[in-house]
Amino acid sequence: MTGRVTGGRVYLVGAGPWQPDLLTVRGQTVLGRAEVVVHDYLANPAILEWAHPEAELICVGRPPSRLSQAEINALLVERGLAGQCVVRLKGGDPFVFGRGGEEAEALRDVGVPFEIVPGVTAAIAAAAFAGIPVTDRRFGSTLAICTGHQRADADDSLDWPALARMDTLVVYMGARRLGAIAEQLMAAGKAPHTPVAIVRWATRPDQSTEVIRLDACAAAVVRPPATVIIGQVVELRTRIAWFEARALHGLRVVITRSQATQAGVNARLAELGAEVVQLPTIAIAGLSETAPVQAAVGALASYDWILFTSANGVRHFFAALRAAGLDPRAFATARLGCIGPATARCLDEHGLRADLV
Amino acid sequence: MTGRVTGGRVYLVGAGPWQPDLLTVRGQTVLGRAEVVVHDYLANPAILEWAHPEAELICVGRPPSRLSQAEINALLVERGLAGQCVVRLKGGDPFVFGRGGEEAEALRDVGVPFEIVPGVTAAIAAAAFAGIPVTDRRFGSTLAICTGHQRADADDSLDWPALARMDTLVVYMGARRLGAIAEQLMAAGKAPHTPVAIVRWATRPDQSTEVIRLDACAAAVVRPPATVIIGQVVELRTRIAWFEARALHGLRVVITRSQATQAGVNARLAELGAEVVQLPTIAIAGLSETAPVQAAVGALASYDWILFTSANGVRHFFAALRAAGLDPRAFATARLGCIGPATARCLDEHGLRADLV
Repeated sequence: MTGRVTGGRVYLVGAGPWQPDLLTVRGQTVLGRAEVVVHDYLANPAILEWAHPEAELICVGRPPSRLSQAEINALLVERGLAGQCVVRLKGGDPFVFGRGGEEAEALRDVGVPFEIVPGVTAAIAAAAFAGIPVTDRRFGSTLAICTGHQRADADDSLDWPALARMDTLVVYMGARRLGAIAEQLMAAGKAPHTPVAIVRWATRPDQSTEVIRLDACAAAVVRPPATVIIGQVVELRTRIAWFEARALHGLRVVITRSQATQAGVNARLAELGAEVVQLPTIAIAGLSETAPVQAAVGALASYDWILFTSANGVRHFFAALRAAGLDPRAFATARLGCIGPATARCLDEHGLRADLV
Repeated sequence: MTGRVTGGRVYLVGAGPWQPDLLTVRGQTVLGRAEVVVHDYLANPAILEWAHPEAELICVGRPPSRLSQAEINALLVERGLAGQCVVRLKGGDPFVFGRGGEEAEALRDVGVPFEIVPGVTAAIAAAAFAGIPVTDRRFGSTLAICTGHQRADADDSLDWPALARMDTLVVYMGARRLGAIAEQLMAAGKAPHTPVAIVRWATRPDQSTEVIRLDACAAAVVRPPATVIIGQVVELRTRIAWFEARALHGLRVVITRSQATQAGVNARLAELGAEVVQLPTIAIAGLSETAPVQAAVGALASYDWILFTSANGVRHFFAALRAAGLDPRAFATARLGCIGPATARCLDEHGLRADLV
């Protein structure tokens, strides 16, 4: 109960996969408390909204400002020694292909207290969202995890014959070398008909999963990022895939009401699989942030659905459309939805028919 | 956007390890929303405090009322078809040795929508809290996970020779069969001097980790529950163990003030490793729940530290002590702490000296 309480402290936090609320409650708590957040170039910056509004945010992973591991270690040490409360936010889990161990050692060497906050690693996230139990007692019960993306000087030292004998194998960053990996597994005796799931952008609204045979991998073109799951358990996906099967999966929906009044509908749309884009048209009445509205109005054709949540929203939206020198043709093939008949009538006054009320 | 929105829905939620706030934010959200929570016999019931106060809590894993997997599936199906919002709360992750796949299949067969909410699995939790990165580029990078506790009819069908060639191996429920597992790994060529970490009660305040050589496992007596980590990465623990190294690790501290006013100190004590026991002595003034106070007063000698946070707390505590027919001798060897000099003076009036102010 001495100086260690009040001095600097570093939390090595696993951010989990893309979907922000797959962060742990503990991670959310310390993120809200930190004075400094040192984060990788995260796929989803929404997680940083849980940081304290006055926290200093330092991105160490975005080119060209990408820091080396030694530089990151030095940064954490410097801030910890200065007495700051620091969160080091890392994708997935800090200790599974995360190099969290190297950061912990650097902190320990100078006596800065630290805490490891585990996270949902890619194997678990991809499996959950692709509908594939990585272990199942009907298909054996050994699970192995490795990375496809090896160090340049490593010369692929993985023990593929042993990996081939695992019931389930999950390969992180497996896109680019998938063909070579499949060849090595088959050479070691893995059955050519073994199913392989390629999960791209796991947990994102546009997540996509493709299932092919192991002997088809060499001919497959897979763009990163992808997590690859190999084994008979992949067959279960045909029965329990749920995320990509949701009614609105892969659709982007624009919400014109403010986030505060719209939270309930947003949550329901998200649960049905839609990617919800906030477009608070009230903002065009003179607030400072009109750039997002203008950008969205200019890109109307890229949306699948545009959802109006009030007559007011319709009116302001069309005002923004006119201000941008556009007319309803800008909607192109987007379909239009209205929450309630009053909103639909207002849309009708502007000459457009709601596809869904 | 039809009946699927308003009908029943089941969330298969990974509760993570013992420490409740290692649940994901998503898990916490749906737990607060559920009408029914179907949970295993969790090591830590504190996680259920996040359930809605009116939610129906059904424990399916506590003997003798333990349900079979088929009965659990039927229960989930029944409640889902009845239109209820159900959380199925499982230790760790639903898809890693969790049989979540079987529950998902049962729901899919009857058309009840479900969502998988992943959790921090034991391998990741034990590694984080034992200070062992399960992968480290200096020690190779293949990770395998298996269970030591096999089905009675399985006759140990695991491919131990292949598992022996993984850089890191994590064995769930590895306590009882540790000797046999070690023999099979060594017979397959695993070096006898390979370090083995035995992590008992991972993430609990009384977590303990023992590191021995692989060839010492046969002679070791390990009581369940334990997660076992085998591989050179275990060596890193000597440098980055943090959880068990905290100043107050393994100590139980009693807090006599109410949880609401005491949250800040509680959090700090917990961060230093103490197990914080709430003993709101205000409750003895006539509230219904005096049983915990009486139980704690009766077990005073089992505490390492007793912390008084106000003069009021001291007065009520001694009243409870008297009511139980006890006197200060009941403290036995427990040490006494006071938050502030006023509290210490009050303790002094009762004839006791604070060991720490």
